[in-house]
Amino acid sequence: MSTRICLRTSRTLQAASRSSAHSSRLLQPKTTFRTFSNTPYRLNASPTLTPKPVDPPIIVKPKRIGKWRTFLQILGRVTLTVILTSGGLIYYSAWKDRHPGDQLPHDPTKKTIVVLGSGWAAISMLKSLDTQEYNVVVISPRNYFLFTPLLPSVPVGTIDPRSIIQPTRYITRHKARRVLVYEGEALAVDPNAKSVTFQDTSPIRGEGGPSTIEYDYLVYAVGAETQTFGIPGAKENSCFLKELWDAEQLRSKTMDCIESAAFPGQRDEEVNRLLHMVVVGGGPTGIELAGELHDFVVDDLRKWYPELAEKVRITLIEALPNVLPMFSKQLITYTEQTFKQNNIDILTKTMVKEIKPKSVVVQDPTGAKVEIPFGLLVWAGVRNTLRPITKDLMAKLGQAQTNRRGLTVDDNMVLAGSNGSIYSFGDCTATSYAPTAQVAAQQGTYVGKLFNQMAQLAKLEAELAQLKKEKADLNEIDVVNKKIVKASKMKPFQYSHQGSLAYIGSDKAIADLPFLNGNFSSGGVATFLFWRSAYMSNLFSLRNRCLVLIDWAKVAIFGRDVSRD
Amino acid sequence: MSTRICLRTSRTLQAASRSSAHSSRLLQPKTTFRTFSNTPYRLNASPTLTPKPVDPPIIVKPKRIGKWRTFLQILGRVTLTVILTSGGLIYYSAWKDRHPGDQLPHDPTKKTIVVLGSGWAAISMLKSLDTQEYNVVVISPRNYFLFTPLLPSVPVGTIDPRSIIQPTRYITRHKARRVLVYEGEALAVDPNAKSVTFQDTSPIRGEGGPSTIEYDYLVYAVGAETQTFGIPGAKENSCFLKELWDAEQLRSKTMDCIESAAFPGQRDEEVNRLLHMVVVGGGPTGIELAGELHDFVVDDLRKWYPELAEKVRITLIEALPNVLPMFSKQLITYTEQTFKQNNIDILTKTMVKEIKPKSVVVQDPTGAKVEIPFGLLVWAGVRNTLRPITKDLMAKLGQAQTNRRGLTVDDNMVLAGSNGSIYSFGDCTATSYAPTAQVAAQQGTYVGKLFNQMAQLAKLEAELAQLKKEKADLNEIDVVNKKIVKASKMKPFQYSHQGSLAYIGSDKAIADLPFLNGNFSSGGVATFLFWRSAYMSNLFSLRNRCLVLIDWAKVAIFGRDVSRD
Repeated sequence: MSTRICLRTSRTLQAASRSSAHSSRLLQPKTTFRTFSNTPYRLNASPTLTPKPVDPPIIVKPKRIGKWRTFLQILGRVTLTVILTSGGLIYYSAWKDRHPGDQLPHDPTKKTIVVLGSGWAAISMLKSLDTQEYNVVVISPRNYFLFTPLLPSVPVGTIDPRSIIQPTRYITRHKARRVLVYEGEALAVDPNAKSVTFQDTSPIRGEGGPSTIEYDYLVYAVGAETQTFGIPGAKENSCFLKELWDAEQLRSKTMDCIESAAFPGQRDEEVNRLLHMVVVGGGPTGIELAGELHDFVVDDLRKWYPELAEKVRITLIEALPNVLPMFSKQLITYTEQTFKQNNIDILTKTMVKEIKPKSVVVQDPTGAKVEIPFGLLVWAGVRNTLRPITKDLMAKLGQAQTNRRGLTVDDNMVLAGSNGSIYSFGDCTATSYAPTAQVAAQQGTYVGKLFNQMAQLAKLEAELAQLKKEKADLNEIDVVNKKIVKASKMKPFQYSHQGSLAYIGSDKAIADLPFLNGNFSSGGVATFLFWRSAYMSNLFSLRNRCLVLIDWAKVAIFGRDVSRD
Repeated sequence: MSTRICLRTSRTLQAASRSSAHSSRLLQPKTTFRTFSNTPYRLNASPTLTPKPVDPPIIVKPKRIGKWRTFLQILGRVTLTVILTSGGLIYYSAWKDRHPGDQLPHDPTKKTIVVLGSGWAAISMLKSLDTQEYNVVVISPRNYFLFTPLLPSVPVGTIDPRSIIQPTRYITRHKARRVLVYEGEALAVDPNAKSVTFQDTSPIRGEGGPSTIEYDYLVYAVGAETQTFGIPGAKENSCFLKELWDAEQLRSKTMDCIESAAFPGQRDEEVNRLLHMVVVGGGPTGIELAGELHDFVVDDLRKWYPELAEKVRITLIEALPNVLPMFSKQLITYTEQTFKQNNIDILTKTMVKEIKPKSVVVQDPTGAKVEIPFGLLVWAGVRNTLRPITKDLMAKLGQAQTNRRGLTVDDNMVLAGSNGSIYSFGDCTATSYAPTAQVAAQQGTYVGKLFNQMAQLAKLEAELAQLKKEKADLNEIDVVNKKIVKASKMKPFQYSHQGSLAYIGSDKAIADLPFLNGNFSSGGVATFLFWRSAYMSNLFSLRNRCLVLIDWAKVAIFGRDVSRD
């Protein structure tokens, strides 16, 4: 209270002194002013503050500094500070990221780890691995890591494809020792010879054929393929949503359907067919894609294709009795309600029997076969099937590998039958965990740390050998021995579930989060903001975070692009 | 000076009054404070401002407001104001753009204009056309307009492909009357029946076949194809840079070459071949692409592929004695010097004779044939050849169209032999102007205005007929007659050259600008900034401007992406 009054007082004085200073300017020599400003205690005595008695009294109204003005002044300072600080920090961090220093060369005395894959499993492992102790070679047909959880936002243009990828070299170039990255596909693993054969399968390639590399340890994280259960036409007539190019192709096809529906002289049924979008699979990917498609129709198509937008229909087909089996009951109900409000049809207990070029044959809950015409069908099934190279590896390992679901590994992610030379995790393995990004990432981090621990152990053992050779003090040897015992204990992998999140359309998301041994479920717009911030913090790099934020801002301001490129 | 002193004074007083207010707080009733703050003239009498004589004098040093602090305070306010104003303006403009109002329906009493194309010519014409007076139908295989001058920035990732395209519907939805947009390719024009046959040529299409539409006026702006002079292998083994997908494919291929060169076990010659990028054509497109490729190698590849970046070579092949024939002599020299500094080889007077999958056969200035191996070859030749539909149209018009370079039009862009029903301009026509975006855009704007004038004329003629029917006053008829005479004068098209600009790499650009009947040439970093601002202002929409600006900022902060997607 008193401070505010003082503030007003000083303003009043300021105004008074300013006006009197002006009027007495010519009377006072300049030096007086200077002295005066340095001797505050003579203020009251100064003539500049006492209004001249001869002049008629000038009424100076006190200037009111409104709350708003103070607020805006503070906001101005805060804005400037925030912009300068965050801008500077972002620029500095980005600059540091873009200027990786020199790296140690490959060291023939160190063991070689060959990593197959560049998904969640492989990249998480790479991130936690201390490359000082190993020569590392990464082989993957993709030269980047794809942040799969945001992939369903790409087909409608909410997010730019390049915003959620991070080149593998952006990660490996920051490692202490040089990591070799080869863009190629692994053709076969020879667990006996401890070698991998791989080939450049891209359109442009050099004159060399397949190449073979030997490993001391193999990190086998090749992931899996989408399971289509041998349904006729599933591979030929549906779009997938697993890789980045799937999402880009889907974007082009979505706009193609809409432009084709806008083409003149077509029957109404044909227009309705072209504008019917079917998503097969009620897992998070399918749900998120359906939600994003709905947003695209409502937010963008309505504006640019007003005559067509109302005719677009979205249908989700799920074989199980309900969608999102990994979520709690009330969130499933909430999702179903939201979809109903958004006019997205959910067909549960409906099995896909055949996918034709323009229609899908399903068996509805009554057992009857129904043919549903579509313009676009997206196979968003969550089930995986093994890649040929994995099947081949299993066959080579014989009796140790008999699980048809995937590779058998122990608690340390060591492949059964590999004598400790192959580590495998992620979607290519069959464990008690669901084949999710979260599991793969945690397993990868775990294996990276395991390698660090093994390097530590090897160092200690070398130290021990040296001590023994030097016939050192027994106590000293004992100390090292104890350290070795400690370093030898490889804790088994333990999964810590961080919760499940899914976007369900119209700025709503659902979240099941573990909370004090229980579960915290929430759905709605607030959860959507949580969903965004959670994904934001999970993105691997500052660059990706900024790019995704910019994309969200772009869509909020300019909407999504409807060009078919 | 005095103001600053007063400011200090008031600060001092403020400090003094604050301290005395604190000490006298308990002695003074609250009401006194309130009265006091409203009666400034009793200030000096107030006990709160007179230091108590019993207390030892407190020395309050005057707070010095440094220049820096004042500067920062002002900067804070300015920043806040700029952010709020520009943010608000951008948001408001974008919001308005995204919420086009209702449009008039097609009016059967109005004449129908069918527009073929969605390039510079067609879109400029659409922009200047008043659709209130016509029913307009746009037919193009692309549903967007592509800002071609920035296309060479796309293959290396300086600019995102979607930042330089604008969906045709973003333009047509803001027109007074509804404009029909059909994504399809025109198959044939029948100038006698005044009709166009067109078809949906995209991968997904409805069950309908080709569709035919009748026109009163046809705007024929289909552009041209890239001329490869029948050189063997030119179409099969080179990349082009005309459409957006060309640029996207080029980006993928560039990274493919680099990843293939990084693949292990290849001979040095093979690595050198893969890293040799050849650009055929020394026009602005070729020069800009070579410059952008150089930037990409220096700014990005060096960081992420340090072992390869030094081996990348860029060569530009041009059949003429020098590059950039449309620029002034000193700028050509400047470009050649800059390219030399940047280690880009320019081979002039060199004719491409054959393009094989991995090498190009050229005839050097001495007449000798040389085979140059390459990883990537981009055909950036500026010469055009006619599209099949244009050749077909010329054949139908017989004697009126005999120029093999393109369609013959008069000064009003009316196609010879079309009896005034077909207007043609842009790259499909043969005029005295170069086939550039600038010419096409000005011709489009001209024809749009011509149509507006014709509508005006038709209105006046209807008015005249009405007046004559009503047997109105002769003076009145005379006034309208005069107006008709004025509106009948269709001024011929006149091209106004705005200058030539090209980016040549390492943040340098060249510009030839007409200036006071002369020419102003400049090259360098300042010209590069001018180049950027000129392109910025030429972009058609606020959305594109913001997107391109964001892309430039992204590259400045995070660099270009090296993922091969």
